[in-house]
Amino acid sequence: MPIITLTTDYGGRDAFAASVKGVILKINPQAQIIDISNEISPQDIWEAAYTLKSAYSHFPKGTVHLAVVDPGVGSGRRPIIAVTESFYFVGPDNGLFSLIYREAERLRVHHITSTHYFLPNPGPTFHGRDIFAPVAGWLARGIPSGNFGEEISDYTKLTIPSPKVSGNSIEGNIVHIDRFGNLITNITHKDMQPLMSEGAELSNATVAIAGKEIKGLKKYYAEAAPGEPGAIVNSSGALEVFLYRQNARTTLAIKRGEVVRLLIS
Amino acid sequence: MPIITLTTDYGGRDAFAASVKGVILKINPQAQIIDISNEISPQDIWEAAYTLKSAYSHFPKGTVHLAVVDPGVGSGRRPIIAVTESFYFVGPDNGLFSLIYREAERLRVHHITSTHYFLPNPGPTFHGRDIFAPVAGWLARGIPSGNFGEEISDYTKLTIPSPKVSGNSIEGNIVHIDRFGNLITNITHKDMQPLMSEGAELSNATVAIAGKEIKGLKKYYAEAAPGEPGAIVNSSGALEVFLYRQNARTTLAIKRGEVVRLLIS
Amino acid sequence: MPIITLTTDYGGRDAFAASVKGVILKINPQAQIIDISNEISPQDIWEAAYTLKSAYSHFPKGTVHLAVVDPGVGSGRRPIIAVTESFYFVGPDNGLFSLIYREAERLRVHHITSTHYFLPNPGPTFHGRDIFAPVAGWLARGIPSGNFGEEISDYTKLTIPSPKVSGNSIEGNIVHIDRFGNLITNITHKDMQPLMSEGAELSNATVAIAGKEIKGLKKYYAEAAPGEPGAIVNSSGALEVFLYRQNARTTLAIKRGEVVRLLIS
Repeated sequence: MPIITLTTDYGGRDAFAASVKGVILKINPQAQIIDISNEISPQDIWEAAYTLKSAYSHFPKGTVHLAVVDPGVGSGRRPIIAVTESFYFVGPDNGLFSLIYREAERLRVHHITSTHYFLPNPGPTFHGRDIFAPVAGWLARGIPSGNFGEEISDYTKLTIPSPKVSGNSIEGNIVHIDRFGNLITNITHKDMQPLMSEGAELSNATVAIAGKEIKGLKKYYAEAAPGEPGAIVNSSGALEVFLYRQNARTTLAIKRGEVVRLLIS
Repeated sequence: MPIITLTTDYGGRDAFAASVKGVILKINPQAQIIDISNEISPQDIWEAAYTLKSAYSHFPKGTVHLAVVDPGVGSGRRPIIAVTESFYFVGPDNGLFSLIYREAERLRVHHITSTHYFLPNPGPTFHGRDIFAPVAGWLARGIPSGNFGEEISDYTKLTIPSPKVSGNSIEGNIVHIDRFGNLITNITHKDMQPLMSEGAELSNATVAIAGKEIKGLKKYYAEAAPGEPGAIVNSSGALEVFLYRQNARTTLAIKRGEVVRLLIS
Repeated sequence: MPIITLTTDYGGRDAFAASVKGVILKINPQAQIIDISNEISPQDIWEAAYTLKSAYSHFPKGTVHLAVVDPGVGSGRRPIIAVTESFYFVGPDNGLFSLIYREAERLRVHHITSTHYFLPNPGPTFHGRDIFAPVAGWLARGIPSGNFGEEISDYTKLTIPSPKVSGNSIEGNIVHIDRFGNLITNITHKDMQPLMSEGAELSNATVAIAGKEIKGLKKYYAEAAPGEPGAIVNSSGALEVFLYRQNARTTLAIKRGEVVRLLIS
């Protein structure tokens, strides 16, 4: 059974996501369709890119990942298929797949121009249904990606904020805030490795954020004292600031983009 | 694999929708169940009717569309099956399928009375689980609709607001507001056609809503100036008022029902 | 097709639930995964226990119910599999399955220790993905529950609030508030039975809550006068306080835990 995932800002109230699924099932009745998220904030391309990146690699090889956050729908922005060593990605060429491009070992990007795969007479406001859904459906049925259009090399990439190392400290940013209010940074275990070589311990590290200092990284959430901000390297290998059983976002009043400094001593 | 869709006001937090799915899968383990929406506003029959109408026709022929927004649950209101040329609809007889009736080429409506298809001892508050889910499950297994009960002709229809044409203007209403805050009217491309015959151009049309005048219809969202209300004929063929990358509902403080006038000149 | 359900506090916005599904499908591509709810309030073990209890028995025999609300993730709390006469339950040993234990006719609980079923190098913050998802996937593929670890008897049980009978009255609590604002109590039809034997009628019963008296139980919601609190024995056999087409929770300003008294006369 081919698997197709969905990452969109369509929400759960309207029929947008369901229409996409109906179109896919009409073309590919065997497809198993799994929502990654339809609750991306409206038009938030970064949030979609981050969310897709968090989940895509856990799916079986061959999965088609359909992603539509598309403020430029109906304009000249291109519909694309990105093909990596293990997956297919279908969506608008607006940077949505930037984090995939960075992680891919092999990458081909096609500009979708074979309009005979589209629904007849695509409208100007819902390419998810009229263009991307049928392309994903046919792709998952085995149509080679090359049949949908020419390969391109000038596809759009978002500027991805990178952590900066200076001495024994790393400066990064909050790049995502999850449902629990946990503040996820772009500082990863990999970034810390070079600074760790001199026998430093993460339990001695300090995290500075919004005027607050957090002493020592925790090994699990419940280790933190109630009401006191904690820091941890989470299961995706990213430095994360949290409040045990509370919401760090609302309590600390922190937004995406906030600067974070990790000092390893 | 038979497909069954769900349109309800059950929400995603409680176990209502899942209970319905469990009952279906017990009867019909092969069924693929797709949510159209479980986030219909509580008891909002119109919203459910509109949402179901937006999606139902995109599904494969033979799909069973189960819809339950049911303030009269447990009272005398009838459970029904509506059968069109391509689909089955299962739910309470309270007008939920009004927009389906209007679009159907062939239509039969059955009053469900064969209680042996129900779960044993249906309770008074959850017919979605006890009555509609098993009926949908059996229907998708191939039990003929006639087996569930007699055909009826006095099924309930909502009063559907229709646009009024007068000279070269059309007066309609906002009939739906989507997740993005886009204001969808009941004025369609079809309504505009007769007024377009004299060489009029939609780029010269004017849309009046809530004391605001919008000059010219856009071809796509991104064509509109930021912060300025725009109008477009959307991918469902309906006139829609929007704010590019903003929320027209909250910014313009507009509710469902608001009057909209389109002047074609 | 094996069925696996999901009950979590992961929410619909992040990729948590999708990552769990991807891991399951990689191990068990035939699995059909059904959400019971991913919208449990963060860390609310009771809400998860209640929601799972409401739905689990409606699924086909053999269903694997995966539930993860897990404030102790990464700490010493044990991962477990509970096996009843009809179902499997996989999750943390924090009381999440307390209501299942109470209803089970046969029950075995295993401490999951066979780490070779886990993803490699499980992180400290996301055992749903790294431990529970693969265990559920393998379990649904037919690996015997005994292979995952030894049986234990000291598994964690929540203190479950029980109604108290005194004379012809029963005192209970609001144990759940649903999406519609209906207030569900822990007083069940079974609790009322002994008090009903003397010819008493529920239409003469009185429900007292938060200083309000509700006279007589209704047979269905629409029987209640608009704006007036009503009481009903719902389709799960529980006493429920409601406001017809309104939200009893917000209108009456009532929270979970509130005391309710039923007087049968």
